[in-house]
Amino acid sequence: MGEFTHLDSEGLPKMVDVSDKADTRREAVAGGTVRMKPETLRRIKSASVAKGDVLATSRLAGIMAAKRTSELIPLCHSISIGEVRVDFHLDESDSTVKITALVKSTGKTGVEMEALTGAAVAALTVYDACKSLGDEIVIDDLRLVEKRKEPPPPVTRSRNPTSDDTPDASL
Amino acid sequence: MGEFTHLDSEGLPKMVDVSDKADTRREAVAGGTVRMKPETLRRIKSASVAKGDVLATSRLAGIMAAKRTSELIPLCHSISIGEVRVDFHLDESDSTVKITALVKSTGKTGVEMEALTGAAVAALTVYDACKSLGDEIVIDDLRLVEKRKEPPPPVTRSRNPTSDDTPDASL
Amino acid sequence: MGEFTHLDSEGLPKMVDVSDKADTRREAVAGGTVRMKPETLRRIKSASVAKGDVLATSRLAGIMAAKRTSELIPLCHSISIGEVRVDFHLDESDSTVKITALVKSTGKTGVEMEALTGAAVAALTVYDACKSLGDEIVIDDLRLVEKRKEPPPPVTRSRNPTSDDTPDASL
Amino acid sequence: MGEFTHLDSEGLPKMVDVSDKADTRREAVAGGTVRMKPETLRRIKSASVAKGDVLATSRLAGIMAAKRTSELIPLCHSISIGEVRVDFHLDESDSTVKITALVKSTGKTGVEMEALTGAAVAALTVYDACKSLGDEIVIDDLRLVEKRKEPPPPVTRSRNPTSDDTPDASL
Amino acid sequence: MGEFTHLDSEGLPKMVDVSDKADTRREAVAGGTVRMKPETLRRIKSASVAKGDVLATSRLAGIMAAKRTSELIPLCHSISIGEVRVDFHLDESDSTVKITALVKSTGKTGVEMEALTGAAVAALTVYDACKSLGDEIVIDDLRLVEKRKEPPPPVTRSRNPTSDDTPDASL
Amino acid sequence: MGEFTHLDSEGLPKMVDVSDKADTRREAVAGGTVRMKPETLRRIKSASVAKGDVLATSRLAGIMAAKRTSELIPLCHSISIGEVRVDFHLDESDSTVKITALVKSTGKTGVEMEALTGAAVAALTVYDACKSLGDEIVIDDLRLVEKRKEPPPPVTRSRNPTSDDTPDASL
Repeated sequence: MGEFTHLDSEGLPKMVDVSDKADTRREAVAGGTVRMKPETLRRIKSASVAKGDVLATSRLAGIMAAKRTSELIPLCHSISIGEVRVDFHLDESDSTVKITALVKSTGKTGVEMEALTGAAVAALTVYDACKSLGDEIVIDDLRLVEKRKEPPPPVTRSRNPTSDDTPDASL
Repeated sequence: MGEFTHLDSEGLPKMVDVSDKADTRREAVAGGTVRMKPETLRRIKSASVAKGDVLATSRLAGIMAAKRTSELIPLCHSISIGEVRVDFHLDESDSTVKITALVKSTGKTGVEMEALTGAAVAALTVYDACKSLGDEIVIDDLRLVEKRKEPPPPVTRSRNPTSDDTPDASL
Repeated sequence: MGEFTHLDSEGLPKMVDVSDKADTRREAVAGGTVRMKPETLRRIKSASVAKGDVLATSRLAGIMAAKRTSELIPLCHSISIGEVRVDFHLDESDSTVKITALVKSTGKTGVEMEALTGAAVAALTVYDACKSLGDEIVIDDLRLVEKRKEPPPPVTRSRNPTSDDTPDASL
Repeated sequence: MGEFTHLDSEGLPKMVDVSDKADTRREAVAGGTVRMKPETLRRIKSASVAKGDVLATSRLAGIMAAKRTSELIPLCHSISIGEVRVDFHLDESDSTVKITALVKSTGKTGVEMEALTGAAVAALTVYDACKSLGDEIVIDDLRLVEKRKEPPPPVTRSRNPTSDDTPDASL
Repeated sequence: MGEFTHLDSEGLPKMVDVSDKADTRREAVAGGTVRMKPETLRRIKSASVAKGDVLATSRLAGIMAAKRTSELIPLCHSISIGEVRVDFHLDESDSTVKITALVKSTGKTGVEMEALTGAAVAALTVYDACKSLGDEIVIDDLRLVEKRKEPPPPVTRSRNPTSDDTPDASL
Repeated sequence: MGEFTHLDSEGLPKMVDVSDKADTRREAVAGGTVRMKPETLRRIKSASVAKGDVLATSRLAGIMAAKRTSELIPLCHSISIGEVRVDFHLDESDSTVKITALVKSTGKTGVEMEALTGAAVAALTVYDACKSLGDEIVIDDLRLVEKRKEPPPPVTRSRNPTSDDTPDASL
């Protein structure tokens, strides 16, 4: 079994020192479940075909929260996130909204807390949207689903920056 | 059953208008559970008697997150929180840390999202502290436990502000 | 003509002192226009019928930014916002997205900066979503549309808080 | 001598419960001193007559930080600040910049932490501006200077909101 | 014409995945215009020679907002900004303040949203400062002026860190 | 003597351009002192053996504030912090709490403002905890203690990412 990396030898909280670590590609997927009454789930489903829907709000809340993880979790490092995706599966079999949050980064620390924070805040936002329906909603099974770490791709610096501009003009 | 108060008649997301509501005393308690291996729980317990411990960090993370709920949950109102308390119960019978977050406020909107956000971030911080132990931790059963709303106390403005200064000089 | 209320007699920046002002109901509406190519507007329109759309993202960005106005505009007071609404009108006649942001509050200061900030950030988010289309987008005509100030409603404290709980259980 | 109001009977950190307190006018003034070499002080002085100066930056940093005190100090309440003023006195007699931060509010808690945070961040910003001069700068004597608490003024709600609009149209 | 990079194949909002992109030097310049009455412009001009002026406040607001772009624009990546400059031109010919915001970075994504956000918040802060003068101010012509992307300079790690310390001791 | 790197040739505030700088390992240690009555120090000491203590709260506040330095100090760059440590020494000889904040980073700018901000906010949080004891507390001697800059370690990308996973599973 490992050790508490957030406690020093005297039991005092500290951030793990990552300043000498090499950059690595990191990826983490977290999941969570929001349990509700079947009628509430049915309503979310019908709202989701309307223009401004419950899940769009929750998806953005999850993405934005993942980017701010280091402000919320005291000993987390602030990192440059490469991608966040939050997805929902409306599962009528057990009357739940199942949430998946994927975070990718190239850096010195893992991104599981970012994925978990994204999933948690997306779930809280589903809760917030549905609480006026009078349902007793429960958030369950918030956990890491998958985590990967691999060397970064070889640096192939674009020799021709202008030609590279077309597909991702936005970047 | 109620309606989605966060969707207008066209299904677009909106904040509920509370500007004409009277101030009311609000209180909400949320709970959540962090499941882990017995060995992990045992370690938290022993770390908790050390000077800088897992639960102190999680408690502060929960309190600070509750104060920032309106930045995380898109359609939540920003409110003046009167009190936040985050408590932990280490339950060896099922190898869990049980979290309770209490939020009090006097204002125009309820505080259940603040309590839930406090409990969720406290749980995520327990997760963050324990993930290096290699355990598969799961956050479960995050839900509202209790909610109260009552008229505010009659305004009895202190006639004698100086004499009132002694006990709460800090305020 | 008035005076710079944000400069003191020596020309130094200061927040206006509002601590002795009575609470008043405030409302402000700001507008802004995002100009683009007709093809870009047509695409936004078709994206808007899909589940996750450009305008839903921009609406939430505007609402969330309005709540954080006092962090962005140095001499703005932090206030309790009662409601924010951000609306869009896709105007094919001049190939624009017209944005309206409404903010309501009961407090000591006006909310025009909150409405303007909400409209500005909603417009920037439309820009962000469309920039990959290669269009030259321009944000124009960001201005106050309307502002109101009136005494707050008489305080009619709910004598019967429980019966009041049904319609807005969420609050 | 008083008690730690931020520790409960078991020694656990908590926010003080202020939800039942009456609103009171609060005012606090904090001071701080930045010590430097006479040459550094002379340079700040000459920069201060230029258009963008060291003290203007530090003043705004102090004002903006005072508004965010509750995000920085874990057990502070978030409050509505009525006014913040940050002032500087360049004292050649002992080669210091003396900082004063005044905060006013009408609410349930005092504002001394807001005044102290404003003074501290203003001092840090002076430091940041001057560190490239190679001086060994020290921030000293950061403390509460004055604190007042009095009943709020009687609520005289403006009967005639429109006529009241002229002088402070901006509010 | 390009595609919406912020919508996936199902039309759901997502952040663009940049985790495999090489670091590139990026630069973007955004511009904006604040239209006002000639008298208001004249007053800003005279205030600008005073110690604490309208434009110094707006400049800092723009710089600070550019650094926080990823918190405001939901699908923007958080990046390390290398430089922000905000400049103003008081143009009496058409009674406007013309704003330019330049942002530089070395990273995986462009910085045009950072430049636009800086210009927008600087413009809003000019508005905030001038609204008490009773003028009808309009923010116009907020747009990207220029954007560059080029390979980063060859990494020439300083072999002699101490000798490098003198000119930029502050860094 | 150096120059104000935060003022351009016209005396206008600007961020220093670091976009072309090579990444370097940086380290800074800042110190500060909180002066109080002996009785207050004695109480902190006894509280520190309890479960939730004054110093644990202050330590976390300092760590979290160091991570947010660029939001507080207007012209600071946002950086990726590798490690933050905040330590306290209770010195009965002069009735003070002595604070040390260490920050490490690998990047383009130094971390002395991060270390100073961490020490300052830790000191303010000690103040906040003790102010209810009625003591006149003073924060003194906040200054840089040490600063280092050296080339980063050679990049030795882990060829075998899985075997590397065991010791720092948490990252």
